[in-house]
Amino acid sequence: MEKKKYISMAVIKRLPKYHRYLRELLRNDVDRISSKELSEKIGFTASQIRQDLNNFGDFGQQGYGYNVRELYKQIGIILGLTKDYNTIIIGAGNLGQAIANYSYFKSIGFKLKAIFDRNPKLVGLKISDVEVKDTDNLEEFLKNNDIDVGIICVPKEHAQGISEVLTSNGVDGIWNFAPIDLKVPKNVIVENVNLSESLLTLSCRMNDNLMGNRRKVNAIDEI
Amino acid sequence: MEKKKYISMAVIKRLPKYHRYLRELLRNDVDRISSKELSEKIGFTASQIRQDLNNFGDFGQQGYGYNVRELYKQIGIILGLTKDYNTIIIGAGNLGQAIANYSYFKSIGFKLKAIFDRNPKLVGLKISDVEVKDTDNLEEFLKNNDIDVGIICVPKEHAQGISEVLTSNGVDGIWNFAPIDLKVPKNVIVENVNLSESLLTLSCRMNDNLMGNRRKVNAIDEI
Repeated sequence: MEKKKYISMAVIKRLPKYHRYLRELLRNDVDRISSKELSEKIGFTASQIRQDLNNFGDFGQQGYGYNVRELYKQIGIILGLTKDYNTIIIGAGNLGQAIANYSYFKSIGFKLKAIFDRNPKLVGLKISDVEVKDTDNLEEFLKNNDIDVGIICVPKEHAQGISEVLTSNGVDGIWNFAPIDLKVPKNVIVENVNLSESLLTLSCRMNDNLMGNRRKVNAIDEI
Repeated sequence: MEKKKYISMAVIKRLPKYHRYLRELLRNDVDRISSKELSEKIGFTASQIRQDLNNFGDFGQQGYGYNVRELYKQIGIILGLTKDYNTIIIGAGNLGQAIANYSYFKSIGFKLKAIFDRNPKLVGLKISDVEVKDTDNLEEFLKNNDIDVGIICVPKEHAQGISEVLTSNGVDGIWNFAPIDLKVPKNVIVENVNLSESLLTLSCRMNDNLMGNRRKVNAIDEI
């Protein structure tokens, strides 16, 4: 396990993609795969793959390739998929509802415990079998329940305030959909999904494309 | 404009963040800012900022700093914000509806022309003043309308098929929310929002944190 400390953020960001491709291989009853074959599927270079996967153990053998099941299992452990995370959603608009109904979310151990919203029209509704509570009750709920992760789906002007309520009441992971950089204590992990930045990137790349400056983009750049 | 060709994907990915911070500065009537002050706000190093912004013109002056308005304008041009993109959404579930109602989307020139879904319960509904059409009519619609961008919000098993209908009928930009790597012609730009990869990254980083291996993450890693 000693090696694990040195896995860079760049590698961590690639692990979910490995995990997804390995799951597909297992579903297709593939037991072994070479870095070259994996490279053709996943779009990273074979040498990148060997370098990445060397980070956390010895799953490849010269002339044999990778043991798909073992590698999938180990990446799952590193990805934290053997744990459950008690989770709440703040903001029950379309986006909050989309997340609440997102089945993958539950399948990897994020247990939805409550949904909060300020809108009286939404309070009391059931979304994905979970009742929407009034955001006024958020702090009390956090004090009485052991919540690990908060998913912020509120407008950006409320996001920092919500994050402070979360982090001062024991939440140490935030999945943030509001387009701001949250200020959080050092021990708290924030993962941002910034739709506006993604859309601007699309716009920029299309514009660039139209101007005849299309550049080669390799799969690593995309992550 | 000659220099523009050499802007790397890494820089492009950072431009939306510059754009967002510069807009806030303008709103607060800030005309000039040094790379050092910008660094404190945005979290990139001052030298990174100087290097990035040097890519597309000479907006900084020693002892004066950057002209915020000029820089904001130029980044907007590079981001393609002076153009409109005729856009459709395929998939009118919660996520498609969230995107359709996302006001920022329209404010930067993505004009929502139609929404498609296979579900007869959704066909005919109005979302954000746009009527949901049957996906059976997608191809015909594309042949009769000049659509630039398709936003894919369908389940992953339908995503590749939809993308083929889009790209063979003139669409050259795809904002893809399905968790698969679309195979598209070379001239088509795909920007992915992969919620499952983002969630796995959160899970991985939390797991790592719990294991006492918390590492420093700088703002650049996050993008």
